[in-house]
Amino acid sequence: MSDDGHQAERDAILRAAYRLISHGSTTGTTSIENILRAAGVNRRIFYRHFASKDDLIIAMQEWAGDLILADLRKAVAAADTPAAAITAWIEDYLSIGWQEARFRDALAFMSTEVTGAPGIAAALEATYARHREPLAAALAAGLADGSLPNARPELDSFAIHAVAVRHLEARIRGRLDTDFDEVRNQVVELILTGLSAPAVQPPPINVGS
Amino acid sequence: MSDDGHQAERDAILRAAYRLISHGSTTGTTSIENILRAAGVNRRIFYRHFASKDDLIIAMQEWAGDLILADLRKAVAAADTPAAAITAWIEDYLSIGWQEARFRDALAFMSTEVTGAPGIAAALEATYARHREPLAAALAAGLADGSLPNARPELDSFAIHAVAVRHLEARIRGRLDTDFDEVRNQVVELILTGLSAPAVQPPPINVGS
Repeated sequence: MSDDGHQAERDAILRAAYRLISHGSTTGTTSIENILRAAGVNRRIFYRHFASKDDLIIAMQEWAGDLILADLRKAVAAADTPAAAITAWIEDYLSIGWQEARFRDALAFMSTEVTGAPGIAAALEATYARHREPLAAALAAGLADGSLPNARPELDSFAIHAVAVRHLEARIRGRLDTDFDEVRNQVVELILTGLSAPAVQPPPINVGS
Repeated sequence: MSDDGHQAERDAILRAAYRLISHGSTTGTTSIENILRAAGVNRRIFYRHFASKDDLIIAMQEWAGDLILADLRKAVAAADTPAAAITAWIEDYLSIGWQEARFRDALAFMSTEVTGAPGIAAALEATYARHREPLAAALAAGLADGSLPNARPELDSFAIHAVAVRHLEARIRGRLDTDFDEVRNQVVELILTGLSAPAVQPPPINVGS
C-alpha cells in the first residue's frame, strides 16, 4: 500500500473515533466494533495503525487538541497588540465551551471516556503545553514592548490556560449555567488588569515551602 | 452494633483507602483485598458500608477534600483583610502540591485512580465548589469594604481555584520543576493587582457566542 493509503486509513479511524466520542454521551464508552464500522475498516487494519483502543484514544485526543491549537494560532495571529492577542486567545479557548460545533472538540479532548484512558495524562499535559505556546509568545511580546509590564510569560500562560480549561471541564461535567459574555469579560479584565496595572506587591509567605 | 461502632468501621475503611491510595503510585490500582486487610475488616463488613469500590473511592475523595477544606477555612480565618484572606487561600491551596505530607491529600483527591472512577466527576465538582466558598466570601468582603473594587466573587473564585488546582494536577502528573515561592508570588500578584488596580476595560467581543 502507498504511504497515502496508509495515512488515509489512519485518518479514517481517527475521524470515526472523533465523531463517535464527540457525539456520544460523556459517560458511555465507544466500542472498537463501532469505530471499525464507522471507519469502514476491519480489525486487522485497525491493529496495523493502533496497538489498542487506548492507543487510538490518545492519538485521537492529540488530533482534537491540534484542531484547537490551529484555531488559537489563527486568533492570536489576527490581533495587532499583545493585549489583543491575549484577549483573542482567551476568547477563542473559552468559546469552545459555548459554541455547539466547537464543543465537540472539547468532548473529544476531555470527556471522561478520553481522560479515563490509561496513559492519557502525559499526552494531555503535552497538548496543554502546546496550547499555551501562542499565549506565552504574546505575553513575552507585551513584556518586551512594555505594554504588559508585569508579564511572566511561562507562569502567566499556565494560569490563563488553567482558567480557560477549567471552564471547559466544568461545562463538560454539566455545569452549563454561566453566560459567555460575562465569563469572557471577567477573565479578560482580571488578567489584563493584573498584567498591566501598577503591580500590587504580594505580602510575605506564611507557610513553609 | 452501636452507631459508634458502625461509624468507626466506616472510618477505618476510608482511612485505609486514603493511606493506600495516597502512598501508592498514581497509576496503579488498589485492590479491595488490600483495603480490607489494611482496615482489618472482612468483605461482608465492607459491603455493609459501600456498594462497590467506586462508591468507596467517591466517599474517600470527599473525605480527602474535607481535609483540604478544613485547612483552607483555618488559613482564611486567620487573615485580617480580604486581600490577606485571598493570599492565605492561594498559599494554602498551592502548598498542597509542594509539601510532602499534604501532597498525600492531593493524591487521594485527584490521582488517576480516583478521578478515573465512574461517577466521580460530579462529586469532584461539588467538593471544588465547597473549596471555593471561603474564597468567594473573602472576595465579597473586599467588594463590600471597597478594598477589592473589581471583585466578582463567583467568577473570580472560580478563576483563582482553577489556577491553584491546575498546579496540583500538573504536579501529580509529574510536572515537578517549579519553585513554590515563585509560583505563589506570581499568582498572588496577578490576582491582587487584577482585583484592586484601576480596571482595564476589555475590548469588544470578536467571536459569536
